[in-house]
Amino acid sequence: MTEKTVLPGVLIASGNWAPEPWALPFTSEPDRPLAIWPDVPDRKAIHYVLAWRPPSEAFTNLPNLKAVFSLGAGVDHVVGNAALPDVPIVRVVDPDLTTRMTEWVTLQVLLHHRQHLAYARQQAAHQWRELRQPVANDVRVGIMGLGELGRDAAAVLARLGFQVAGWSRSAKSIPDIETFHGEDGLTAFLGRTDILVALVPLTADTRGILDASVFDRLARNGALGGAVLINGGRGGLQVEADILAALDDGRLIGASLDVFEPEPLGPDSPFWDHPRVVLTPHVAASSEASVLADSIHRQILDFEAGKPLANLVDVSRGY
Amino acid sequence: MTEKTVLPGVLIASGNWAPEPWALPFTSEPDRPLAIWPDVPDRKAIHYVLAWRPPSEAFTNLPNLKAVFSLGAGVDHVVGNAALPDVPIVRVVDPDLTTRMTEWVTLQVLLHHRQHLAYARQQAAHQWRELRQPVANDVRVGIMGLGELGRDAAAVLARLGFQVAGWSRSAKSIPDIETFHGEDGLTAFLGRTDILVALVPLTADTRGILDASVFDRLARNGALGGAVLINGGRGGLQVEADILAALDDGRLIGASLDVFEPEPLGPDSPFWDHPRVVLTPHVAASSEASVLADSIHRQILDFEAGKPLANLVDVSRGY
Repeated sequence: MTEKTVLPGVLIASGNWAPEPWALPFTSEPDRPLAIWPDVPDRKAIHYVLAWRPPSEAFTNLPNLKAVFSLGAGVDHVVGNAALPDVPIVRVVDPDLTTRMTEWVTLQVLLHHRQHLAYARQQAAHQWRELRQPVANDVRVGIMGLGELGRDAAAVLARLGFQVAGWSRSAKSIPDIETFHGEDGLTAFLGRTDILVALVPLTADTRGILDASVFDRLARNGALGGAVLINGGRGGLQVEADILAALDDGRLIGASLDVFEPEPLGPDSPFWDHPRVVLTPHVAASSEASVLADSIHRQILDFEAGKPLANLVDVSRGY
Repeated sequence: MTEKTVLPGVLIASGNWAPEPWALPFTSEPDRPLAIWPDVPDRKAIHYVLAWRPPSEAFTNLPNLKAVFSLGAGVDHVVGNAALPDVPIVRVVDPDLTTRMTEWVTLQVLLHHRQHLAYARQQAAHQWRELRQPVANDVRVGIMGLGELGRDAAAVLARLGFQVAGWSRSAKSIPDIETFHGEDGLTAFLGRTDILVALVPLTADTRGILDASVFDRLARNGALGGAVLINGGRGGLQVEADILAALDDGRLIGASLDVFEPEPLGPDSPFWDHPRVVLTPHVAASSEASVLADSIHRQILDFEAGKPLANLVDVSRGY
């Protein structure tokens, strides 16, 4: 018998998520060491960490670490880690996750556009009454953040007839979508936007970006009679008090929020009962862990076969 | 001075809709006689009737009638008229109307797919809880009726990732959409359908088609855990008691209904308060009358310039 080959090992540090589905693809490889945080019998065996909101200790004393795989599309939970090692950080990019986010964004845009909350109140009151309704072609959606998720949502909303524009930090060109960029482009972008969709990564630059100064600049006299905020990104992007104030004084006529800081949202938050707020519990792009785990497993096998890692995070930019 | 040219006249018989926006494009032609039902001073002058739920009397004693223009996409309200004259009947086909119906259908499909009613109840209860959620690719939408409206909705839903199939009376071929037809194809179509969208015209053949025998045949063990009915067509397509029974025993897990018979829906209908029903007051494709009136006016000018009328109704089929 030759000596048994030991494959590069994997550590799953999945925070508040159950580790089992993330570990599953690796259990079919008996020669690959597999550890579930905080139980790491042999730190030298670990070449990869699969991480969701990892504690700093999950990154320390791993002398053979080759790469970190974020279990979410956003990587702020990893990049902000005080013990972040100097290895490639890989974000999840998977059609499953993109499809789900586009479902959620499209649903929320249409909910506000078609005045679902008002019709639901009329239904509860047994009231048969038509409301004045603009067509999509007269409504301007602005997508803040033009990564994989922003671009896909933009394409679907444009197909539905909305006037779609996008904003990103650096200049990007997308077929059929008007684009703006940088601080200089933000005012023009907001001024032509009736429905603002935030899909921007959470970084030092974007923390708190959804604040009064943004709501002040959104369109006021568009076809919907006011502006709508949809946040499918991160709770840290938004200043909750500013959202509530803008809803109160009419700068915002509605909002859909999937993310908060901290999560879960506290039971006393005024958002729960706000008549013009749709709230979902950070499920916009919740993928089946098993699907994303298979995707990460394939990337690791490709990497071990000599291919470069894709979807790398630029730690200096924070995404 | 030569004798004044008198243009072919127009009669607006717009039922319960205000006639003014329909009359507007013709008021710019002072030489065109314009009558608003029931005030028709010169019946011989009338060459065209613009009709929404017209009374029989609006069609009689019009010796020079050339064409009838339906003000809605569905033409059952005209075709069923006892005094229907033997002239071309023209349906409204307008991008505005198609866009609006696709908005409504997409919203309703996503509402049920993403479990909005359950999340809204959780929001009201201040409950932060993730629900198990399939991705669009695992959910099968079936579009019943493959006219202009059905085909456009099918294309958008396919772009969102849903498995989309269509059913129509006669065989049709549509890129990327599986199609079924006729009574023979109906069982197979229903058996692969988790979300059934009815956009079929109301005819003698389709009256009451949405009944227990259809709900019996819908998929039961799909990714949503049951079937959903979405009716954006006509109230006459559905058997309300059968819908309620199917909701009660789980053959249907949800429904979105925009149309009823009669309308408005009576205040005592059990649909208003049903926890799994979304109800809208026949607004799915409510277009601006002014947009559709301009479209009809253009068709009349084209017709008078010698072009054939488009979008003609086959009265023998009823649509």
